[in-house]
Amino acid sequence: MPHLLDVAGMSRWIQRDGAENILTGMVHYLEDDLRRWQSFEKIPRIASHTRFGVIELMPITDSSLYSFKYVNGHPLNPARGLQTVTAFGMLADVDNGYPVFFSEMTLLTALRTAAQSALAARELARSDARVHALIGAGSQAEFQALAARAVLGLEELQVFDVDAAAVEKVRRNLEPLGFRVLLAESADEAVEGADMVTTCTADKARNAALHRDQVRPGMHLNAIGGDCPGKTELDPRILEHARVIVEFEPQTRNDGEIQQLPPDFEVTELWQVVSGEAAGRTSDEEITVFDSVGFALSDFSALRYAQDASAGSELLGWIDMIADPDDPKDLFSLVTSPAPAG
Amino acid sequence: MPHLLDVAGMSRWIQRDGAENILTGMVHYLEDDLRRWQSFEKIPRIASHTRFGVIELMPITDSSLYSFKYVNGHPLNPARGLQTVTAFGMLADVDNGYPVFFSEMTLLTALRTAAQSALAARELARSDARVHALIGAGSQAEFQALAARAVLGLEELQVFDVDAAAVEKVRRNLEPLGFRVLLAESADEAVEGADMVTTCTADKARNAALHRDQVRPGMHLNAIGGDCPGKTELDPRILEHARVIVEFEPQTRNDGEIQQLPPDFEVTELWQVVSGEAAGRTSDEEITVFDSVGFALSDFSALRYAQDASAGSELLGWIDMIADPDDPKDLFSLVTSPAPAG
Repeated sequence: MPHLLDVAGMSRWIQRDGAENILTGMVHYLEDDLRRWQSFEKIPRIASHTRFGVIELMPITDSSLYSFKYVNGHPLNPARGLQTVTAFGMLADVDNGYPVFFSEMTLLTALRTAAQSALAARELARSDARVHALIGAGSQAEFQALAARAVLGLEELQVFDVDAAAVEKVRRNLEPLGFRVLLAESADEAVEGADMVTTCTADKARNAALHRDQVRPGMHLNAIGGDCPGKTELDPRILEHARVIVEFEPQTRNDGEIQQLPPDFEVTELWQVVSGEAAGRTSDEEITVFDSVGFALSDFSALRYAQDASAGSELLGWIDMIADPDDPKDLFSLVTSPAPAG
Repeated sequence: MPHLLDVAGMSRWIQRDGAENILTGMVHYLEDDLRRWQSFEKIPRIASHTRFGVIELMPITDSSLYSFKYVNGHPLNPARGLQTVTAFGMLADVDNGYPVFFSEMTLLTALRTAAQSALAARELARSDARVHALIGAGSQAEFQALAARAVLGLEELQVFDVDAAAVEKVRRNLEPLGFRVLLAESADEAVEGADMVTTCTADKARNAALHRDQVRPGMHLNAIGGDCPGKTELDPRILEHARVIVEFEPQTRNDGEIQQLPPDFEVTELWQVVSGEAAGRTSDEEITVFDSVGFALSDFSALRYAQDASAGSELLGWIDMIADPDDPKDLFSLVTSPAPAG
């Protein structure tokens, strides 16, 4: 039977090892897989859009392991008490097609998105960066803050959200962990003096959480929330004057901030930077943008990491998802014999 | 939490209600959904091929319900004690993107494939059909036989497989259920006098389980096994002289028997026949072929049926796959508070 890491197991894992330790470890898995980018069969995710949100499948495979994630994005969900994003996923053995590991991925996606952002920021933010602005204080905010601290040492937060209660939630969650948290009353106040700005808003619309005149030379922008057609966060004039790094160009042209720009606008893929094929930040004045939409490879890495970290532990359960008759050609025997115990 | 119908639950359902009753009921669900074909957002499945097999995701959605299936096809698996095909799937609420029902789908796929075949045969086989030939006696064979009996009354089976033990297995499983089973020593012997021929072989190759000279006027061919590029079962000359019905033309052009024919070879989609937009069989002499590759809509129907049939029963369990903090914007609280009980 395949292993199952459910929500309770995932929560216990993060409590056991600590979110920052896990984020640091995850960066290694992300890097390892990005360095072998050419080993993967890659396709843009398969999305089904409605007026209220999107449902996506994100598969990827190398020659030995296959993964996919199911994930939704419904910006109106929090108003009715639900998560904007929920997700689960799976690893399967390519040789025989059998699933080997199922996992909740709502928490895991928050971790992997933050780890991926921190990895990009490590290559792109100024090495003397100190102040981290968060525009958007939803479910991802704390994970982004922790990853930026774990990887870049950023401990000063300046947080803005149109929902003041969400900003207060970030303060309540992060001050006890040693962050200095400024509750900003506007995006202007949040980005004042910031070296890195994470935009992480959820509206399914062409927004501009950040305007061109709020961006100063040397800033690194970590743009998380613009991630499907018609859903962007940045004033496009910011992008025109910045170095833009993406995950997987064919997908980001469709889903990312650069959907606002002509299709020949030059971008660099993150794996190129991580593997040394392309430069990271090239000057102290450069404005850099990680136009992150979330790509299947980082889910693959996150699932591998969760599988390795939970192996042999009480975090794991089993899921009875593989029909397994004694004679492989006698599937019908499962219907005629007494059913196996649940 | 979403419901879970696992392998044990699925087995108990089939034992509780009986495979033939379930197959008859499933035909109604398939028909209902085929009649509203235009309500669905349809795409060909997303396949990842290796030399040893294929792994596929099969999503589909209408305006209220989304489904997908994960399924593999690995013809060498039985030689190492594994199923050729394993599958699981899910239903989600389109409005909020939350999964509501997870199910094993190895058994469910066998049921839905057989029910879909029987539905097509009801429209395409001669009404005086009596003898059912099975070429290929693997995991699908008994389900195909039961569906053809439940829907068309075919109780005489003539079975051939290169693996004699598999043929004997079919006899052992089906004679006690009232079938008359001829163990054929060749495909020729199996199709002798048959009114309907089901081909259900697994090799990932251009095979010809059935040759043109084995096909007689009036026969209905139910071709199940040719279902991905390079994997076919029928002599293409059979198709050239037959009426060919498919599930979803864009997918079948790529995956089905008709991959052997020019792209303008005329086919009819099954929903057209079921809804009365196109004729079924038009003469006693016509040769009809259901070129079945398996389409996401029949999985959608099968999941709906399994969900309805198991609702409120002890067949169902739960799966802890949805992170659900009290404050929807405070996902991080799941990491700081004590973990919920598993």
